[in-house]
Amino acid sequence: MPASAARLRFAAHVRRLRKLARWSQEDLGDHAGIHRTYIGAIERGEANVTLDHMQRLADALQVDVSELLQPSV
Amino acid sequence: MPASAARLRFAAHVRRLRKLARWSQEDLGDHAGIHRTYIGAIERGEANVTLDHMQRLADALQVDVSELLQPSV
Repeated sequence: MPASAARLRFAAHVRRLRKLARWSQEDLGDHAGIHRTYIGAIERGEANVTLDHMQRLADALQVDVSELLQPSV
Repeated sequence: MPASAARLRFAAHVRRLRKLARWSQEDLGDHAGIHRTYIGAIERGEANVTLDHMQRLADALQVDVSELLQPSV
Protein backbone atom coordinates (compact mmCIF):
# COMPACT_ATOMS: atom_id res chain seq x y z
CA MET A 1 0.00 0.00 0.00
CA PRO A 2 1.56 3.33 -1.06
CA ALA A 3 2.35 5.78 1.73
CA SER A 4 -0.68 8.03 2.11
CA ALA A 5 -0.36 11.60 0.90
CA ALA A 6 -0.72 12.65 4.53
CA ARG A 7 2.36 10.60 5.51
CA LEU A 8 4.54 12.11 2.80
CA ARG A 9 3.36 15.65 3.54
CA PHE A 10 3.92 15.15 7.29
CA ALA A 11 7.38 13.71 6.63
CA ALA A 12 8.41 16.72 4.55
CA HIS A 13 7.22 19.23 7.18
CA VAL A 14 8.98 17.43 10.05
CA ARG A 15 12.25 17.30 8.07
CA ARG A 16 11.94 20.98 6.98
CA LEU A 17 11.25 22.23 10.52
CA ARG A 18 13.90 20.01 12.11
CA LYS A 19 16.52 21.40 9.72
CA LEU A 20 15.25 24.94 10.34
CA ALA A 21 15.99 24.31 14.02
CA ARG A 22 19.42 22.89 13.05
CA TRP A 23 18.59 19.68 14.92
CA SER A 24 19.71 16.18 14.18
CA GLN A 25 17.05 13.45 14.18
CA GLU A 26 18.41 12.50 17.60
CA ASP A 27 17.94 16.08 18.86
CA LEU A 28 14.32 16.08 17.68
CA GLY A 29 13.79 12.66 19.24
CA ASP A 30 15.12 13.92 22.56
CA HIS A 31 12.86 16.99 22.49
CA ALA A 32 9.76 14.99 21.52
CA GLY A 33 10.47 11.89 23.60
CA ILE A 34 10.55 9.73 20.47
CA HIS A 35 13.40 7.39 19.50
CA ARG A 36 15.65 8.79 16.75
CA THR A 37 15.16 5.68 14.58
CA TYR A 38 11.41 6.36 14.59
CA ILE A 39 12.11 9.96 13.59
CA GLY A 40 14.01 8.56 10.61
CA ALA A 41 11.10 6.32 9.66
CA ILE A 42 8.72 9.28 9.99
CA GLU A 43 10.87 11.45 7.71
CA ARG A 44 10.99 8.66 5.08
CA GLY A 45 7.19 8.44 5.12
CA GLU A 46 7.40 4.89 6.43
CA ALA A 47 5.72 5.52 9.78
CA ASN A 48 1.95 5.64 10.19
CA VAL A 49 2.18 8.33 12.86
CA THR A 50 -0.56 8.75 15.47
CA LEU A 51 -2.21 11.98 16.58
CA ASP A 52 -0.47 11.87 19.98
CA HIS A 53 2.96 11.56 18.36
CA MET A 54 2.02 14.33 15.93
CA GLN A 55 1.16 16.56 18.90
CA ARG A 56 4.49 15.79 20.62
CA LEU A 57 6.43 16.56 17.45
CA ALA A 58 4.50 19.80 16.91
CA ASP A 59 5.17 20.83 20.53
CA ALA A 60 8.89 20.00 20.15
CA LEU A 61 9.10 21.96 16.88
CA GLN A 62 7.01 24.78 18.45
CA VAL A 63 4.37 24.87 15.71
CA ASP A 64 0.64 24.21 15.68
CA VAL A 65 -0.01 20.55 14.80
CA SER A 66 -2.06 21.62 11.75
CA GLU A 67 1.11 23.17 10.24
CA LEU A 68 2.57 19.67 9.91
CA LEU A 69 -0.17 18.75 7.41
CA GLN A 70 -0.49 21.98 5.40
CA PRO A 71 -0.57 21.34 1.64
CA SER A 72 2.39 23.58 0.83
CA VAL A 73 5.84 22.35 1.95
CA MET B 1 -2.78 10.54 29.97
CA PRO B 2 -5.23 13.26 28.87
CA ALA B 3 -6.37 13.09 25.24
CA SER B 4 -3.95 15.23 23.27
CA ALA B 5 -5.23 18.55 21.97
CA ALA B 6 -4.83 17.14 18.47
CA ARG B 7 -7.22 14.26 19.28
CA LEU B 8 -9.93 16.56 20.62
CA ARG B 9 -9.59 18.97 17.72
CA PHE B 10 -9.67 16.11 15.19
CA ALA B 11 -12.72 14.63 16.90
CA ALA B 12 -14.63 17.92 16.71
CA HIS B 13 -13.86 18.40 13.00
CA VAL B 14 -14.89 14.83 12.06
CA ARG B 15 -18.17 15.20 13.95
CA ARG B 16 -18.87 18.67 12.47
CA LEU B 17 -18.19 17.54 8.88
CA ARG B 18 -20.08 14.26 9.28
CA LYS B 19 -23.16 16.16 10.49
CA LEU B 20 -22.74 18.69 7.66
CA ALA B 21 -22.97 15.72 5.28
CA ARG B 22 -26.02 14.46 7.23
CA TRP B 23 -24.28 11.12 7.73
CA SER B 24 -24.58 8.71 10.61
CA GLN B 25 -21.35 7.33 12.10
CA GLU B 26 -22.15 4.16 10.17
CA ASP B 27 -22.44 6.12 6.89
CA LEU B 28 -19.05 7.75 7.49
CA GLY B 29 -17.57 4.37 8.39
CA ASP B 30 -18.88 2.88 5.14
CA HIS B 31 -17.43 5.75 3.07
CA ALA B 32 -14.05 5.63 4.80
CA GLY B 33 -13.78 1.85 5.21
CA ILE B 34 -13.61 2.22 9.00
CA HIS B 35 -15.90 0.40 11.48
CA ARG B 36 -18.65 2.63 12.91
CA THR B 37 -17.61 1.81 16.49
CA TYR B 38 -14.14 3.22 15.75
CA ILE B 39 -15.79 6.34 14.31
CA GLY B 40 -17.54 6.72 17.66
CA ALA B 41 -14.26 6.37 19.56
CA ILE B 42 -12.65 8.92 17.22
CA GLU B 43 -15.45 11.43 17.82
CA ARG B 44 -15.13 11.01 21.61
CA GLY B 45 -11.39 11.73 21.37
CA GLU B 46 -10.63 8.23 22.62
CA ALA B 47 -8.86 7.00 19.48
CA ASN B 48 -5.21 7.74 18.76
CA VAL B 49 -5.85 8.00 15.02
CA THR B 50 -3.07 7.32 12.51
CA LEU B 51 -2.17 9.41 9.47
CA ASP B 52 -3.52 6.77 7.07
CA HIS B 53 -6.91 6.73 8.82
CA MET B 54 -6.89 10.52 8.86
CA GLN B 55 -6.33 10.51 5.09
CA ARG B 56 -9.21 8.05 4.54
CA LEU B 57 -11.55 10.15 6.68
CA ALA B 58 -10.51 13.35 4.87
CA ASP B 59 -11.09 11.67 1.51
CA ALA B 60 -14.52 10.40 2.63
CA LEU B 61 -15.49 13.86 3.95
CA GLN B 62 -14.02 15.46 0.79
CA VAL B 63 -11.72 17.89 2.61
CA ASP B 64 -7.97 18.31 2.73
CA VAL B 65 -6.52 16.32 5.64
CA SER B 66 -5.06 19.53 7.14
CA GLU B 67 -8.63 20.86 7.60
CA LEU B 68 -9.24 18.14 10.20
CA LEU B 69 -6.59 19.69 12.47
CA GLN B 70 -7.24 23.42 11.95
CA PRO B 71 -7.32 25.35 15.26
CA SER B 72 -10.80 26.78 14.75
CA VAL B 73 -13.75 24.34 14.96
